[in-house]
Amino acid sequence: MDLLKNRIISEGRIIGTDILKVDSFLNHQIDPQIMKEIGKAFAGAFSAEGVTKILTIESSGIAPALSTALYLGVPVIFARKTTSRNLDTDTYVSSVHSFTKGTDYVIRVSKRYLDKDDVVLLIDDFLAKGCALQGLIDIVGQSGAKIAGAGIVIEKGFQEGGALIRDMGIRVHSLAIINEMSEKENQITFKDGDNSQE
Amino acid sequence: MDLLKNRIISEGRIIGTDILKVDSFLNHQIDPQIMKEIGKAFAGAFSAEGVTKILTIESSGIAPALSTALYLGVPVIFARKTTSRNLDTDTYVSSVHSFTKGTDYVIRVSKRYLDKDDVVLLIDDFLAKGCALQGLIDIVGQSGAKIAGAGIVIEKGFQEGGALIRDMGIRVHSLAIINEMSEKENQITFKDGDNSQE
Repeated sequence: MDLLKNRIISEGRIIGTDILKVDSFLNHQIDPQIMKEIGKAFAGAFSAEGVTKILTIESSGIAPALSTALYLGVPVIFARKTTSRNLDTDTYVSSVHSFTKGTDYVIRVSKRYLDKDDVVLLIDDFLAKGCALQGLIDIVGQSGAKIAGAGIVIEKGFQEGGALIRDMGIRVHSLAIINEMSEKENQITFKDGDNSQE
Repeated sequence: MDLLKNRIISEGRIIGTDILKVDSFLNHQIDPQIMKEIGKAFAGAFSAEGVTKILTIESSGIAPALSTALYLGVPVIFARKTTSRNLDTDTYVSSVHSFTKGTDYVIRVSKRYLDKDDVVLLIDDFLAKGCALQGLIDIVGQSGAKIAGAGIVIEKGFQEGGALIRDMGIRVHSLAIINEMSEKENQITFKDGDNSQE
């Protein structure tokens, strides 16, 4: 998705060898125009899969998931990272390790909204080591639902998550796959063709 | 907004005298169709205000804020409740008390995305005691930006937040204002005309 790659190149800030800040349009400030195109791209890629639910994880996954849902016309569920009086007690639960924050956290989805008849599209903003996505896959597994695939806005192709999820037989559709990035040279290279890895 | 009130009546679950669970369409599972109508309603209500940014708070505010942004064509910023390697260190900071969780938490917005030339529309899913909204107002104050008003999906009219924010001279546009609710009688009554309190 050239529009996305251009924004990553012009606005992304690289820190060290593995942090890419795209908080000007993706995960702190959100540009509605690019979010619309992201949703359209995911909806197009998974339009033939009979998706009944989109599953993501709070907070940064909500915007791309909602944008996709507006095109596919199916509900979004966002897994909760915190307990809340507003969440049911009867939940699917999984544990996720965050390398970014150096801690484990628990994600929860109410059993009320996901069951064996669902076909689930997973959506997230980043795919790096694949921990968050594995947590979502675990939750879908508990529900007995089928996984249509995963739509990822930015995949860090130099980390192991993409291969790990694809090796599980899950289709991963990433809109931009980064091959390499360097703070020192302030340079990002993308994998050609991106979704050829599907 | 009748569509919203009907969904609250048919799907809302009342617990005690002050908890209303609407997680089937608003803040855990999200119905894209009603979210679209919510965004359209907020965009219409604030179309003449010259809004340049929408400010909300993670996580439940993101969906109605993005939906509004898609109509107004301006960026959304969501205040972060947690520190993250992905957030700048140079931030506006405010402290918010959560009655739902019984704790205080800190919210942060990067200074990069909000300044004195902005006209900000605040969006949130619920208005009860007004703590979260006061935190956002504090952050806009620090930036020197102007506040266009606040768009609230569901206002608990029997709690003090709405009066408190309106007494600050801020226009509050709530799509449904609940006058009273009762778990025992499983009944919700709405304020007539809703936005007459503006």
